[in-house]
Amino acid sequence: MVPHIFRYEISPHVWVDLECTGTLHSSRSSFQKIEVIESLDFGRMLVLDGVINLTERDEYIYHEMLGHIPLFSHPNPQEVLIVGGGDGGTAREVIKHTGVKRIHVVEIDEEVISVSKQHFPSLAVALDHPKVNVQVRDAVEYMKETRVRFDIILIDSTDPVIEQSGGLFRAPFYRDCLKALTEQGILAAQVGDIGFETNLVLGVFNRLKEIFPITRIYLAPVPSYTIVPYAFAFCSKSIRPEAGLGLSRFERGLQTRYYNPQTHQAAFALPEGLRRDLEG
Amino acid sequence: MVPHIFRYEISPHVWVDLECTGTLHSSRSSFQKIEVIESLDFGRMLVLDGVINLTERDEYIYHEMLGHIPLFSHPNPQEVLIVGGGDGGTAREVIKHTGVKRIHVVEIDEEVISVSKQHFPSLAVALDHPKVNVQVRDAVEYMKETRVRFDIILIDSTDPVIEQSGGLFRAPFYRDCLKALTEQGILAAQVGDIGFETNLVLGVFNRLKEIFPITRIYLAPVPSYTIVPYAFAFCSKSIRPEAGLGLSRFERGLQTRYYNPQTHQAAFALPEGLRRDLEG
Repeated sequence: MVPHIFRYEISPHVWVDLECTGTLHSSRSSFQKIEVIESLDFGRMLVLDGVINLTERDEYIYHEMLGHIPLFSHPNPQEVLIVGGGDGGTAREVIKHTGVKRIHVVEIDEEVISVSKQHFPSLAVALDHPKVNVQVRDAVEYMKETRVRFDIILIDSTDPVIEQSGGLFRAPFYRDCLKALTEQGILAAQVGDIGFETNLVLGVFNRLKEIFPITRIYLAPVPSYTIVPYAFAFCSKSIRPEAGLGLSRFERGLQTRYYNPQTHQAAFALPEGLRRDLEG
Repeated sequence: MVPHIFRYEISPHVWVDLECTGTLHSSRSSFQKIEVIESLDFGRMLVLDGVINLTERDEYIYHEMLGHIPLFSHPNPQEVLIVGGGDGGTAREVIKHTGVKRIHVVEIDEEVISVSKQHFPSLAVALDHPKVNVQVRDAVEYMKETRVRFDIILIDSTDPVIEQSGGLFRAPFYRDCLKALTEQGILAAQVGDIGFETNLVLGVFNRLKEIFPITRIYLAPVPSYTIVPYAFAFCSKSIRPEAGLGLSRFERGLQTRYYNPQTHQAAFALPEGLRRDLEG
């Protein structure tokens, strides 16, 4: 293990440096470079093509907010699709909703799954849960063909800047998702940083707005992705997230570290400048 | 002007690096080293003893949330005290509340005022407003002696880790503030980072809780301070911030870029882990 500094770019003129104790894994799959790096303050990190995908320190914020916001907005989610999510973190949160019957994980890169099982067992164990059905394939193709109807679709991809995720941010894929949703269906997707990637966030939002009847941006702090709030999209056919139609389930003891009914509502409060930009 | 990297510490193992084009000012006052540095993505920055005090990019978030949260929680604030705030940013926000009659700025370091007037005129111009009364003195002494009764006290100090701010984070000072507040009085203070300074935040909160009848933590992202949400304290004798007793004034056209009635409420939603820590 060789101590080093892992640097991630926030913008072309801003970086975060993390002191690391060494690299536990480094390989190149058919799709991307996969590294597991041990950092002092962010714990173990999964790094794909040089970009942090998750860290032990803050993955709970990302996975809880991607999963619980749509799931607690839905009165009775049963069929859930996770696009990407080969590390198992999102599945782990979805499993907490005991009413869910099946969780389909469609991950393009088998090596992300095997590396996660070795180095992030507390996340990847979720992939072995009896309700979870893992398929290794391109989600763009999967969405064209599937006949399953989903209550919830969670797009847990890498960033749109990375090659193989591009298709997951385009209108045809979103239209296939809309078709595959039940009448009360909800899609949530990770989008990007609202401060240094504002145009990306506005672009994805405007694309989604043309396709889904209800579209919202919601925010959470994910410091290993960026130093400003990180944006997710909430899209649905009929349900508004503010209603929190499933929130009574939270009170029955579902365990979280970031999500709660207050942060559910608060996540949709946007800074005045961004609110105006999204309306305009 | 010499291009360089300005590095600020988030923790002993995490730093943010900002590309800078040069240093516009560097001096040592009786209290601290004062620098003005031009950065590419955060604009001009005021740096005190090596710590970023404000940047053109995100100062509006800090000043709006320190000022407007208490001011919009109060039905009719008239007499306002700003402790510190020699840059004028907080005064600029308070002035927007046209019902305010007097704004007392008590800044210990005259050189912060003069450097701000030269390099941050859009903030410092507020100090020349006819309602603003600037006094250069130690606020700890001022609070012991003043006979003014304030509707709002805003503690716009440097971090508690910095020598001359220490007294502003101690119980005797807070007790003097409580005495100087009117019956509907509210105090707000900057506290610290909830991720890497959790113990500092819990410590200040518990100290305040013993002194003020109502105490809350609220959050805002201030990336030039830290990469996780930044905590402020809201303390009052009788008013709860959720009531938003002055929010009707917002609708009459007060201009902001971060603050609005939604972010007002959302700021008080705490991550589940922090919520439990504060209760415990």
